[in-house]
Amino acid sequence: MRKIAIMTSGGDAPGMNAALRAAVHQAVVHEVQVIGISHGYEGLLRSAFTPMNLSSVDDIIQRGGTILRSARSQRFCSKEGQEEAIANLWAEGIEGLIVIGGEGSYRGAQALAGMGMATVGVPGTIDNDIPGTDYTIGFDTAVNTVVEAMNKIRDTATAHERTFVLEVMGRASGHIALTAGLAGGAESILIPEIPNNLDDVCRRLKWSSERGKVHSIIVVAEGVASAYTIAEEVKKRTGFETRVTVLGHLQRGGTPTAFDRLLASRLGSQAVEVLLEGGTGVAMSYVNGEVRAVPFDKVFAGSKEIDRSLYNLATVLAM
Amino acid sequence: MRKIAIMTSGGDAPGMNAALRAAVHQAVVHEVQVIGISHGYEGLLRSAFTPMNLSSVDDIIQRGGTILRSARSQRFCSKEGQEEAIANLWAEGIEGLIVIGGEGSYRGAQALAGMGMATVGVPGTIDNDIPGTDYTIGFDTAVNTVVEAMNKIRDTATAHERTFVLEVMGRASGHIALTAGLAGGAESILIPEIPNNLDDVCRRLKWSSERGKVHSIIVVAEGVASAYTIAEEVKKRTGFETRVTVLGHLQRGGTPTAFDRLLASRLGSQAVEVLLEGGTGVAMSYVNGEVRAVPFDKVFAGSKEIDRSLYNLATVLAM
Amino acid sequence: MRKIAIMTSGGDAPGMNAALRAAVHQAVVHEVQVIGISHGYEGLLRSAFTPMNLSSVDDIIQRGGTILRSARSQRFCSKEGQEEAIANLWAEGIEGLIVIGGEGSYRGAQALAGMGMATVGVPGTIDNDIPGTDYTIGFDTAVNTVVEAMNKIRDTATAHERTFVLEVMGRASGHIALTAGLAGGAESILIPEIPNNLDDVCRRLKWSSERGKVHSIIVVAEGVASAYTIAEEVKKRTGFETRVTVLGHLQRGGTPTAFDRLLASRLGSQAVEVLLEGGTGVAMSYVNGEVRAVPFDKVFAGSKEIDRSLYNLATVLAM
Amino acid sequence: MRKIAIMTSGGDAPGMNAALRAAVHQAVVHEVQVIGISHGYEGLLRSAFTPMNLSSVDDIIQRGGTILRSARSQRFCSKEGQEEAIANLWAEGIEGLIVIGGEGSYRGAQALAGMGMATVGVPGTIDNDIPGTDYTIGFDTAVNTVVEAMNKIRDTATAHERTFVLEVMGRASGHIALTAGLAGGAESILIPEIPNNLDDVCRRLKWSSERGKVHSIIVVAEGVASAYTIAEEVKKRTGFETRVTVLGHLQRGGTPTAFDRLLASRLGSQAVEVLLEGGTGVAMSYVNGEVRAVPFDKVFAGSKEIDRSLYNLATVLAM
Repeated sequence: MRKIAIMTSGGDAPGMNAALRAAVHQAVVHEVQVIGISHGYEGLLRSAFTPMNLSSVDDIIQRGGTILRSARSQRFCSKEGQEEAIANLWAEGIEGLIVIGGEGSYRGAQALAGMGMATVGVPGTIDNDIPGTDYTIGFDTAVNTVVEAMNKIRDTATAHERTFVLEVMGRASGHIALTAGLAGGAESILIPEIPNNLDDVCRRLKWSSERGKVHSIIVVAEGVASAYTIAEEVKKRTGFETRVTVLGHLQRGGTPTAFDRLLASRLGSQAVEVLLEGGTGVAMSYVNGEVRAVPFDKVFAGSKEIDRSLYNLATVLAM
Repeated sequence: MRKIAIMTSGGDAPGMNAALRAAVHQAVVHEVQVIGISHGYEGLLRSAFTPMNLSSVDDIIQRGGTILRSARSQRFCSKEGQEEAIANLWAEGIEGLIVIGGEGSYRGAQALAGMGMATVGVPGTIDNDIPGTDYTIGFDTAVNTVVEAMNKIRDTATAHERTFVLEVMGRASGHIALTAGLAGGAESILIPEIPNNLDDVCRRLKWSSERGKVHSIIVVAEGVASAYTIAEEVKKRTGFETRVTVLGHLQRGGTPTAFDRLLASRLGSQAVEVLLEGGTGVAMSYVNGEVRAVPFDKVFAGSKEIDRSLYNLATVLAM
Repeated sequence: MRKIAIMTSGGDAPGMNAALRAAVHQAVVHEVQVIGISHGYEGLLRSAFTPMNLSSVDDIIQRGGTILRSARSQRFCSKEGQEEAIANLWAEGIEGLIVIGGEGSYRGAQALAGMGMATVGVPGTIDNDIPGTDYTIGFDTAVNTVVEAMNKIRDTATAHERTFVLEVMGRASGHIALTAGLAGGAESILIPEIPNNLDDVCRRLKWSSERGKVHSIIVVAEGVASAYTIAEEVKKRTGFETRVTVLGHLQRGGTPTAFDRLLASRLGSQAVEVLLEGGTGVAMSYVNGEVRAVPFDKVFAGSKEIDRSLYNLATVLAM
Repeated sequence: MRKIAIMTSGGDAPGMNAALRAAVHQAVVHEVQVIGISHGYEGLLRSAFTPMNLSSVDDIIQRGGTILRSARSQRFCSKEGQEEAIANLWAEGIEGLIVIGGEGSYRGAQALAGMGMATVGVPGTIDNDIPGTDYTIGFDTAVNTVVEAMNKIRDTATAHERTFVLEVMGRASGHIALTAGLAGGAESILIPEIPNNLDDVCRRLKWSSERGKVHSIIVVAEGVASAYTIAEEVKKRTGFETRVTVLGHLQRGGTPTAFDRLLASRLGSQAVEVLLEGGTGVAMSYVNGEVRAVPFDKVFAGSKEIDRSLYNLATVLAM
């Protein structure tokens, strides 16, 4: 293999640049050329190709976002789009492709693998909702961002003895809400995976209040309900004043944590190794501290459950 | 004067603890006793008094919120409430009172001063909306909190080439929005003091987009409109995808910046000096780098305008 | 078991408070009394006991250091000291003991277990040098602290095109240096586990410089050599200007990261479970994402190697 | 004036990029061309000129360091060097020059002004040691960096009840040490401007220790003595264990604070205005909240004293 391409796709995640940097370095070690594709699959359809070398990835390990940009592509979802895409890759002499993104981006990668392009996925999404890997790139940073927000909210919650509702990302998945809620010391955590009982939340609020605990933070994943809805409902049922914070896309940004940089560096460099060893149709995964290549089929067939023991621990710690 | 009291009142602000610490240290130097009043005027009505010494304020300079807590008091607004309050102060042998808070808290302080209690205000509010002082305690921290959020949002805005709307505090005042918007490199800043022209905002968005600038952040003070309203309207007029972040009360929290700690330490310690020199009915102020005592009447008669030159500069930098 | 005690011992680590909080909550669930021992084994010898309840651990999850304080104790190392210590525990009616600390603290815990006190260790040290566990509490925070320092140093390194030497903790272990060096994008990493070749370091510096890479950061674990020594030597051999930063104990402090809080919460709460189930002479460990109890003997017999693949990756990424 | 040039010179400071960005934007408003000079005066001698437009300064407001790089130049100090430099400027058609840097850089700027080139200085240095301006660009960020380090050190200082010595920048000037020491709650502050009495420091340490204050941080400006020397001396005189941190050049780096970004934006944009209005041989200054142009002669004749009242306040707060 003499020439490979790399792209970032789907929602951006802190650490994507670190993965990109590692892949380029690893390719240079093997004297393999690297082409960067801008704007994900959309850029692939436009042959938005740029050769990359060590200098292209200097001083990006610490940057959030992705220097290759990202975008959604309707056109790529069609068979015609995919044929055009692969033709563009062949025309450029590209023999292998690395796609950094989430499960949606893996679907596109699998399609290209099925059409004969050696393709490897790298799990880049803050949601940590990709089966087959313990962690995705960006999750640790997003969780820390939420926890820092909770640190600040707790100051004013304590000073004013009020109840705060913090809405975090997670349409179908409560990984961010659960992990950050636990680490931030939330009084209640509402996630899509577990039926939520607002009566229970309100009962705990009152109980906390009776033992003199002067602040309460409720973390809610966006997939459960709007923070505004929860805040109103809690006020109606308890009479407590409530306040709302919606972090939104700021959870996607920021300098990646050390954990995400290391994870991204390992997965990005190994993706090149896997390609060079003839691998295709696989996703790089991080399982029990080790890097593995897991077939896309297995990823799609799996599911990424939340850890119930963490949810139970959250209940104990929320007292 | 042998015994003074101190309280925090109204919305909490980072640096209130630093002001409190400085006042206690300064009082100890003069061998004056200090009583801490919990929960603001509400606590005063309940005689929620605690003696404070150097150990009470150890290791609080870096803490957000206020160890004395804060609250609103309806009862204190009435003449009867105020008479009860001052009776509680006399009963405790308190000869001077320091109130750390915003303009609303100053009104209460002035009432007590009018009834014979030596009373001094210290400007503690993130809004920077108190006339007569260049800065209020907490403003610099709140602005930095917003700017850090913008740093993160810019990462993902750049990666996805989208328009973000960030709602910040400021019901009647655009100080936070203007200062943070400028420092954070916002493309548009919407504040209550200046009639907003969404057409103008949209025109700039399109123009930026044409010259290839791939992200746009619109900062809006909550007093202008909800970020959700702005986001929808912009999308309708430009066709650009928009995203919303509402920081809410997390702007009140966090470790105070060096600037706020220093400001708080100077104002808090000087408040004690002013009391001991016989001052009353005055607010500590920071003007041109110096600490002064300004009569409450002058504060209430003044107005705290935004700096139009900053607004113009923002327009130049937003290109 | 009706009454247990808990202490922190050895060098403090961010997350010790989170572990303490989780243990207290878990004990309360089981209606077990908790006694906090101040100042580690030294406090145990002085019967520095304080009953703890939920309120004792409110709002400490985010605090660095340890509210129980820590200290070294010469006296406890002797047989007499240990007998006195265990007598103090019996006298207080304590039936189980949790010790949060490093390998040195585990030795003391094992001694007490051998004398009949049910004792469980929790790995709290920034060095990540305890065999039998993938991570110790505080390591992730310390690594992030070093990486943030590197972010700042890189700014000025780039601006001035200079070589910087950063000395980090690690007398016998290079875990912090290696992980942070990788995540921070260090050009060279010097650790005690691998014979260092300054010629190699200097060759890489020159090579980087030739390809136009304008900054270089050398991370050195304190066990290898003083940063000042390295800086002088590099200057002598390459002629490049060098600058030194010694982070020292600031690596021990700071708000714990989400990872450390979660790890600490899991280990702290499970330590109580293990005690209640009759466990003793064991250390709580985190292996492949799961919490286990590992006998002290096994811990002491093991060794915690650095991951050579990370070292090799560092070499690839340092190009 | 149709074409101006801009450079950064001397030690880099956070906010230099923000000043650069503002100057470019302001020039574009006036349809004036901007040339960026790389590597300071050294680059000027090499005609290291690059045209700059709005895109050149996109997304740099938040970056530490300087995208134009900086360097020292021996050759420029000579008359011949300066004549060559000015010839290079004329050859490029440059009619005005903005130099962002410290007092040393101003000397060069004055020389060029004396030779007929319209030249304006902008105060960029973390040391805050330029007469005629209340603040220099980068000072607020550096102070916050030191204060954050103190936050972390305090955690472990408290846990272990030890004395820490923190060495900060400042060869001839104690501005950083004094401001950060005050804001960080240092027990003692040693600066070049005030004769230091280690006996006094040690007496305070003992007194603090007697009243049970369990940590002590001594901040020392590098111009006074090495932190290692102070630490040894304190240990010898008090018997207390001491620990050392040397922040070094990390004080120069990092994302600029909101204050520095705003200051830089105001000074950078006004520098262009001053040039266009015919100003030369002046330094932009920030005095009592306003931007002014102060002749270099006045700057050189002045002195930037530390504020003794802050030093006295530090003594009160250190109790």
